[in-house]
Amino acid sequence: MSDSDFVWSERKRDAMKIRAKMLDAARSWFKEHEFVEVQGPVIIPAVGDWPSYFEVKYFDRKAYLTQGLQPYAEVLMANLGKIYTIAPSFRVEKAVTKRHLTEYWQIEAEVPNGSLNDIITIEEQLVAHICLGLCEEARAELESLHRDIEDLKNVKIPFPRISYDDAIRVLQRDGFDIQWGTKLDWEDERHLSLQFSQPFFITEFPVGVETFFYQPYPEKPGLTCSVDLLAPEGCGEISTGGQPVIEKEELVRKMKDERISPEEQKWYLCLKEESSTPYSGFAMGVERLTQWICKLEQIGEASAFPRLVNDIYP
Amino acid sequence: MSDSDFVWSERKRDAMKIRAKMLDAARSWFKEHEFVEVQGPVIIPAVGDWPSYFEVKYFDRKAYLTQGLQPYAEVLMANLGKIYTIAPSFRVEKAVTKRHLTEYWQIEAEVPNGSLNDIITIEEQLVAHICLGLCEEARAELESLHRDIEDLKNVKIPFPRISYDDAIRVLQRDGFDIQWGTKLDWEDERHLSLQFSQPFFITEFPVGVETFFYQPYPEKPGLTCSVDLLAPEGCGEISTGGQPVIEKEELVRKMKDERISPEEQKWYLCLKEESSTPYSGFAMGVERLTQWICKLEQIGEASAFPRLVNDIYP
Repeated sequence: MSDSDFVWSERKRDAMKIRAKMLDAARSWFKEHEFVEVQGPVIIPAVGDWPSYFEVKYFDRKAYLTQGLQPYAEVLMANLGKIYTIAPSFRVEKAVTKRHLTEYWQIEAEVPNGSLNDIITIEEQLVAHICLGLCEEARAELESLHRDIEDLKNVKIPFPRISYDDAIRVLQRDGFDIQWGTKLDWEDERHLSLQFSQPFFITEFPVGVETFFYQPYPEKPGLTCSVDLLAPEGCGEISTGGQPVIEKEELVRKMKDERISPEEQKWYLCLKEESSTPYSGFAMGVERLTQWICKLEQIGEASAFPRLVNDIYP
Repeated sequence: MSDSDFVWSERKRDAMKIRAKMLDAARSWFKEHEFVEVQGPVIIPAVGDWPSYFEVKYFDRKAYLTQGLQPYAEVLMANLGKIYTIAPSFRVEKAVTKRHLTEYWQIEAEVPNGSLNDIITIEEQLVAHICLGLCEEARAELESLHRDIEDLKNVKIPFPRISYDDAIRVLQRDGFDIQWGTKLDWEDERHLSLQFSQPFFITEFPVGVETFFYQPYPEKPGLTCSVDLLAPEGCGEISTGGQPVIEKEELVRKMKDERISPEEQKWYLCLKEESSTPYSGFAMGVERLTQWICKLEQIGEASAFPRLVNDIYP
């Protein structure tokens, strides 16, 4: 850290103030809609050979840093109903890039008996509420960051929705070398995101493109009940959500398909309720949302002390 | 985890609901008093041979899990003024006991140009605000936990204050084998705490009894500008705060006194501003506060998924 890092740029100060007001607006939305705030554990048991988890020396054993509330959601909902958390999350990124933080905060919510559509509705209401709130509460900071207040006022429900098929078609039309059935990468999302002036959803991902724990569509078993929310203007994905698999046996089958050992994931499976209650949930990146709202070039500007691949100082 | 853990006791549900309302009340106090909410890093660089830190494998190096915002406070305050955070914190406890969590959340606040007295005032206002708020917002849950609403209504400012000398005198009078100059342990705090019916402060700790980074009193250099807040009814310490050392050279001197290598703490020293601004701050344990308010026997009941020494499942 150099002397110049001690005093931040005006830009970073404004971004941090907006981040704080954003979280306040998010909480007020959840409070109004009677979600109970929870905190899940940061240190979690064995994750086997999922290499994206950071390893912690926990007394004489290995433990890992959480990637979100999802494994704990069923227990929490069984006891508290609709829940949300705003908490840190961790991911070992492979590529040395300034595009991803290894430590970031997430807004997560889980809804018992919630459908995919419920999650879409919650996400768009929440983001619209935050944008509208910031127009009131953070006008000076937004203007100083050259974010036009009108951009945020124009964030209107319902957000546009496109399917994964639509996304692939747009990318292929515009000269991207992408085949149906592959994941959208950073550049793909960026390109799609440049077509929109407000946040938008991508739905109907094929099985295999999204995380294994989402349910297939009942009427279209090749697709998953999941949804990504992307910010416009080239910013890209800010949230993933959906309706997870509830049957324990089906989850075990899906783990095996993905070559994940159910034996090593005993801790995760023991958190699955026997008498399954369907639910849906999402995780939204606090720094991603801050980056879009504040028009920041780098994700690191959205964090007070960003942690990047190989870079942790101070 | 057994099946019976999946559905919590009514007691634990109530405690978790009260915990959520407690955090909401805390944030409303900070908002009203114009503190900016921040999030410091969870993963921090080398801490040398401080064995109370959990080690993380961070790519090809060792890193550690935070024990609080304090090292980052000066940078944050220089840029944002009065700050607070509600965030997880981690500590390797040596003794195998159910009295301490290894992972817990803290309410932390830091005030530029703040004195020790400012911290005392903030802590008592904050705790009184929380107690009063819960009487309104969580009456049903409190009653179900057999917490008399009147107990919380009687939490009045100013909180009683005793000095470390007073504490030692009371303990010696009551037959405890304790010498002046030693730290108060769990049993000592418990005994003192049984004498009070509302939270109370202990001040004027001798140098060596509190963490090295607190300033000595200007007029009484053998004592530190620090303060502990204890909950009554046998609950014990819920917060530590004070006025940290601001001169870099003095901090290095104090590190050497404690046999901490300033070379290994370069990351910490680089976060000290050259032109020192005095400040004060505190960290309050969320689970401790929950335990007292909810009259919980075990600290583990104050956490959704408690992490204890050697015990991390699920």
